[in-house]
Amino acid sequence: MAAPSSDRRRKQPGPRDERKSRTRRGLLDAALARLSGEQSFSSLSLREVTKDAGVVPAAFYRHFPTMEALGMSLVEESFATLRGLMREVRSEPLPTTHLIRQSVDTFLEYVLEHELHFRFIAKERYGGSSTMRMAIRQEIRLFTSELATDLARMPRLATVSSADLQLISSLVVQTIIAASELALDARPDDASELPRIADEAERKLQIILLGAAVWRSDQSR
Amino acid sequence: MAAPSSDRRRKQPGPRDERKSRTRRGLLDAALARLSGEQSFSSLSLREVTKDAGVVPAAFYRHFPTMEALGMSLVEESFATLRGLMREVRSEPLPTTHLIRQSVDTFLEYVLEHELHFRFIAKERYGGSSTMRMAIRQEIRLFTSELATDLARMPRLATVSSADLQLISSLVVQTIIAASELALDARPDDASELPRIADEAERKLQIILLGAAVWRSDQSR
Repeated sequence: MAAPSSDRRRKQPGPRDERKSRTRRGLLDAALARLSGEQSFSSLSLREVTKDAGVVPAAFYRHFPTMEALGMSLVEESFATLRGLMREVRSEPLPTTHLIRQSVDTFLEYVLEHELHFRFIAKERYGGSSTMRMAIRQEIRLFTSELATDLARMPRLATVSSADLQLISSLVVQTIIAASELALDARPDDASELPRIADEAERKLQIILLGAAVWRSDQSR
Repeated sequence: MAAPSSDRRRKQPGPRDERKSRTRRGLLDAALARLSGEQSFSSLSLREVTKDAGVVPAAFYRHFPTMEALGMSLVEESFATLRGLMREVRSEPLPTTHLIRQSVDTFLEYVLEHELHFRFIAKERYGGSSTMRMAIRQEIRLFTSELATDLARMPRLATVSSADLQLISSLVVQTIIAASELALDARPDDASELPRIADEAERKLQIILLGAAVWRSDQSR
């Protein structure tokens, strides 16, 4: 449902709004920068983030109610665009092997372009804060569901039950995430490492989809 | 090569050795206890560990040269017995589906019995300390190689190349590790969650091995 429009809503953002959104971005970026090293989210303090962003601690609350809310925003913005991108790739009328290659390349490229976000995600996926862990798991679940919906349209997976499509999607997502985590740790001096990671991920996805195609949902028990 | 035996080596551990090994254990357990909460290894200090173990900070160095050496010992002891156990399961003359079920059950049971160790492993696998990250990755690699060796003996994987057996093993290991990480986060009030996690892991492994059996190593490019 569209929000009712009003003069107040329709007005252009003024200099105050711009400043506000710049500060918000500054806080998010300060947290990301801190988290790219050895520090983990649960040891990150509001004071550190505001100091690095160049605002007084009390100013934090104009942008986020809690540190966890800031963390949730980081999780959200990490996945929002990526999910759309991946669906776009999958909507192209290409043979499966091409779709796999394109999906792997698009995913890894996006992760490496948003390195700080995904270093944060990799670290917090099993990190100390259970709120972050659950938020990330939720995003991955959404990702997995969207993939299952797209896989349901593949003729060779027509006999696979919805529950098993979720399983297969979860295998695919887990494989691509594992590859992206290796990619983030790839040594910059070894030019062959990234292509090898992408190549292995592709072959793994091919094996999974081969298995999925011969899998009958009623066979196991 | 066996170490040369000597009277000194053969003697029974005296009370001093026993005390020494008790203190060493105390330091390892103190670290594990700290790491089971929100704290991560890179934020753990020698002072915290010795305080919890009830020894003076300087005593630490009689047992470990550095905090990282203590971390490495934790990584090592997490995997040492588990690897042997899994090979034992796989050596039993059972049909594949039974082997899969038994492997999943054995793995998850072991992880839950050594909960603190594997909470530490889950957290540090992508955590802030690159030394821990690499040590854990090395253990997982060893695990994967051993599985590949055992898979090589399966008649239906006879046409799969060694490189692809490594890939398949890595898929299997990644799947079982992901399941164990979910098991560690399972809610104790929901009795159906652990069986569901085990069941899904089993089905995923079946799909992977099905795919592996129809996979020809030369087909991909």
